[in-house]
Amino acid sequence: MSRTANGRGGHGRTGGTARRGTGAPEAGETAAELGEFGVIDRLTGERFQPEQTLLGPGDDAAVVAAPDGRVVATVDTLVQGVHFRLDWSAPEQVGRKAVAANLADIGAMGAVPTALLLSLACPGDTSTEVLDGLAAGVWDAAADAGIGVVGGDTVSADTLVVSITALGDLEGRAAVTRSGARPGDVVAVCGQLGWSAAGMAVLRRGFRSPVAMVAAHRTPRPPWRAGPVAARAGATSMIDTSDGLLADLGHVAAASRVHVDLSSRLVPVADKLRDVASALGGDALGWALTGGEDHALVATFPSEDVVPADWVVCGEVRAGTGVTVDADRWGGSGDPGYLHWR
Amino acid sequence: MSRTANGRGGHGRTGGTARRGTGAPEAGETAAELGEFGVIDRLTGERFQPEQTLLGPGDDAAVVAAPDGRVVATVDTLVQGVHFRLDWSAPEQVGRKAVAANLADIGAMGAVPTALLLSLACPGDTSTEVLDGLAAGVWDAAADAGIGVVGGDTVSADTLVVSITALGDLEGRAAVTRSGARPGDVVAVCGQLGWSAAGMAVLRRGFRSPVAMVAAHRTPRPPWRAGPVAARAGATSMIDTSDGLLADLGHVAAASRVHVDLSSRLVPVADKLRDVASALGGDALGWALTGGEDHALVATFPSEDVVPADWVVCGEVRAGTGVTVDADRWGGSGDPGYLHWR
Repeated sequence: MSRTANGRGGHGRTGGTARRGTGAPEAGETAAELGEFGVIDRLTGERFQPEQTLLGPGDDAAVVAAPDGRVVATVDTLVQGVHFRLDWSAPEQVGRKAVAANLADIGAMGAVPTALLLSLACPGDTSTEVLDGLAAGVWDAAADAGIGVVGGDTVSADTLVVSITALGDLEGRAAVTRSGARPGDVVAVCGQLGWSAAGMAVLRRGFRSPVAMVAAHRTPRPPWRAGPVAARAGATSMIDTSDGLLADLGHVAAASRVHVDLSSRLVPVADKLRDVASALGGDALGWALTGGEDHALVATFPSEDVVPADWVVCGEVRAGTGVTVDADRWGGSGDPGYLHWR
Repeated sequence: MSRTANGRGGHGRTGGTARRGTGAPEAGETAAELGEFGVIDRLTGERFQPEQTLLGPGDDAAVVAAPDGRVVATVDTLVQGVHFRLDWSAPEQVGRKAVAANLADIGAMGAVPTALLLSLACPGDTSTEVLDGLAAGVWDAAADAGIGVVGGDTVSADTLVVSITALGDLEGRAAVTRSGARPGDVVAVCGQLGWSAAGMAVLRRGFRSPVAMVAAHRTPRPPWRAGPVAARAGATSMIDTSDGLLADLGHVAAASRVHVDLSSRLVPVADKLRDVASALGGDALGWALTGGEDHALVATFPSEDVVPADWVVCGEVRAGTGVTVDADRWGGSGDPGYLHWR
């Protein structure tokens, strides 16, 4: 029936800040017992909405300010057992992770996020604890970004599927695409590289620490705010490292029809990453180059002089095709990037 | 990994009109054999994009014109076995149905659609026939509406889940919400009522005709264009009948804090609906009042005089609460509206 989460009577902006997710339990302990409207209410009811939410949950559709006259839009879907495991991550972490991936996509265009929509498919026996946790994670991550969850959809399914749409605003700037890199540009990154991969390696061994790495896997915190900063600084292309630095630079190289060469000594490899690699017999540089899901930003700039603070220059753009490390094809360890159904 | 469908190298607007969905088969007969990027390419590659698509599939996010300075946004998710059955509906019909629900939501705000985003979760053994059919249905429905599929996401899951986000533009008008109905207003509907319910009753009996009813269930064609017309005419509230006329007017009554009374002799019941009801022993009026998924539009207007052509006045708004038929609670047959997990 595709009834939307907006399908609840009582529309409009909800100015309160009450958090259902942390409140006292209501009647019903599962999605089926709560009923569809109970779930919807739990996911979207009575939360703070910022100024740009012109019409929030509770109607056929939401209305969000688009001051630029253009809107940036992206959708990311997480599937239980594929993108997350509830024995590895708390529901709140899953909610935060779903938002993080979207904010990184908005930031990578040089835009600022303006709103989220949440579509949740889940089995009837999904507990209120899981629902509340997911909602809390999504809303907290949205609040951190100064945006609201303005609408969505709740449906039954055999598997838990969290799909988030993010909207953003370019503030008058041109979008920074993947196709603008030019020979002579420098390559710079902002954010953690390989931390999520290291965290997954830790979890796979049955460990829970180092906490920072595990947290980076469970809840990446992409530096999306650096995206608009890079755009203002004149970034010629940008992408977020959802698939891994090499794989994502491969998308840039293909779209821009250029060759990207990284310098292994300049690629930022955190000391903590080296520590974990030593402990587990992993390869820290390999994780940094090929680990996905960090949602760090990587961009090209016309000159080293304009690269903003917090960005680390680690390569250059040349004429040609493909991505190399120290002018060679990367032959080290690492995951070439997660591929679905592989 | 939540790699977006935009994650394919080769970004930007694709000006061609080639249709992968109807072209010669490429290597691989299932999603798993095609691989993730093959699926993405099949779903979003090389199709026509209208002028308002400023940046289409192939980057971290899409950019869509929002000339009004506000954007209307909604998401609807269809799950195999819950919202559709591939033994009852062709994949193309499922794709069209997913778009229809979204366009109705946009229209019900008084807005015109500007773009779609498609998130598809599917098992690895999903055939290219199903993928191509879904894509063809989504793109054809988008083309009918003059909009493009500007981005999306493709992931693996045990169940086929089609989630569509629609964006729209208000063309300078106020959004028509559910909360604006006032005592003295008239209630009017535009579109088919009960046809989807009748079509489902036909399919449940194992029949395939009347074709018009079955088609209405498989692929509702909501009169979304009537939404902006109603808004211009001064509609005070509007909703689409995704849950059924009574249920959806219940949302309007609750949001507007009014009582809605329908006149059973004015509610449009098509002759074809009566024929099917006679043949199957169903109740035509019951289907019209309670059948969901038609995505007809129902709105309130300050006076009968301003109701646009194609709309049928069938009730009035009074002080009070709830929805009645001929001033009584509806006690006839019908489905009170599909509820997930029920």
